[in-house]
Amino acid sequence: MSHPVSNETVEHQLNWRYATKTFDTARPVSDTDWQTLERALVLTPSSFGLQPWKFFVVTDPTVKANLKPATFNQSQVVDASHVVVFAIRRDLDEIEIDRFVARTAEVRGTTIESLSRFRQIMVGFFKSPKMDADEWATRQVYIALGFFMATAAMMGIDTCPIEGFDPAKYDEILGLNALGYGSVVVAAAGHRAAGDKYAAAAKVRFKHEDVIVRI
Amino acid sequence: MSHPVSNETVEHQLNWRYATKTFDTARPVSDTDWQTLERALVLTPSSFGLQPWKFFVVTDPTVKANLKPATFNQSQVVDASHVVVFAIRRDLDEIEIDRFVARTAEVRGTTIESLSRFRQIMVGFFKSPKMDADEWATRQVYIALGFFMATAAMMGIDTCPIEGFDPAKYDEILGLNALGYGSVVVAAAGHRAAGDKYAAAAKVRFKHEDVIVRI
Repeated sequence: MSHPVSNETVEHQLNWRYATKTFDTARPVSDTDWQTLERALVLTPSSFGLQPWKFFVVTDPTVKANLKPATFNQSQVVDASHVVVFAIRRDLDEIEIDRFVARTAEVRGTTIESLSRFRQIMVGFFKSPKMDADEWATRQVYIALGFFMATAAMMGIDTCPIEGFDPAKYDEILGLNALGYGSVVVAAAGHRAAGDKYAAAAKVRFKHEDVIVRI
Repeated sequence: MSHPVSNETVEHQLNWRYATKTFDTARPVSDTDWQTLERALVLTPSSFGLQPWKFFVVTDPTVKANLKPATFNQSQVVDASHVVVFAIRRDLDEIEIDRFVARTAEVRGTTIESLSRFRQIMVGFFKSPKMDADEWATRQVYIALGFFMATAAMMGIDTCPIEGFDPAKYDEILGLNALGYGSVVVAAAGHRAAGDKYAAAAKVRFKHEDVIVRI
């Protein structure tokens, strides 16, 4: 399929997007739309395809209320219908690599043995001296954050990315430590309230020529 | 505008996307499409809105050829019509914060003084003991990478994200050090060649229920 979405629509939606501060509590993301957004999360590309993450989708009002004080009391995590907690797989190890290799063999109908060289490359990569596996995984999770926000914008769904939260408290509230995961960034999703003054504020970006350099 | 792009189109395009290995050298991204993609890069959200980045767009054939050996000889950086080198602003300092505050005042028609509290919050944030400003900036750049790939997919444009390159060599070839920037990740963009066998390979993702946890 060529040019499934027009340039005008793309640019309009990316200009329409903003970090929503006030969500309309009466207008949750519909189940159908949320399903598409979850699929977008799952489809996020990652280095090696390793997907060093889980996405915790919080809709339970009590849990959302518990998250609020751990989010510097930002009300987006209560008002938005869906709160995605982007979490990394901590301390990536060979077990995780083997899980991925097994999944690759399963999906592609091949043997684990035929993937042994690919496996060795990954194992070697994570053993390299300068490697910080948690930080590497965190970078991958930020791809997912960008992928999620761009996709939501195309669908006319509002988001608010949130770095201002206490990861240790989130991990405790959501029980992530026991699972071997750790929260690194959050995004609230829903529909903007009519009165959110930030929606009308001029978008602040450096000039095009200060951001893009053509070589 | 509500639901500007249908769920079906969104899902179709995200499934259509893959890390393109062979680009059609006869089919560059058109100028019009590239303009939209550059605007998407500029519109990428970042924490504080600080945009700690520049995007170096390489189309010059000689420069692309020079990048190839610094990319483990991956031919995507030569065959794709556009190569984006995502670079962080190194060693973020108060000068950079002031540049952003000045731009905010300019775009929003307000005074720099009225933004002094916002400025102080940012200055304090970067002075916090655990802060690694380069790593923080790198995470923001990965938002841009995700934003870029999702947007391109909607437009039917192929991309290949590349972590397998030598940042020090890239910085030298592109002259980034002198500018205070450093390359952290790369994406090639163009149109897939008809024969790229990876286009037909089944997409490997963990099962939905292993990636998404509802709470």
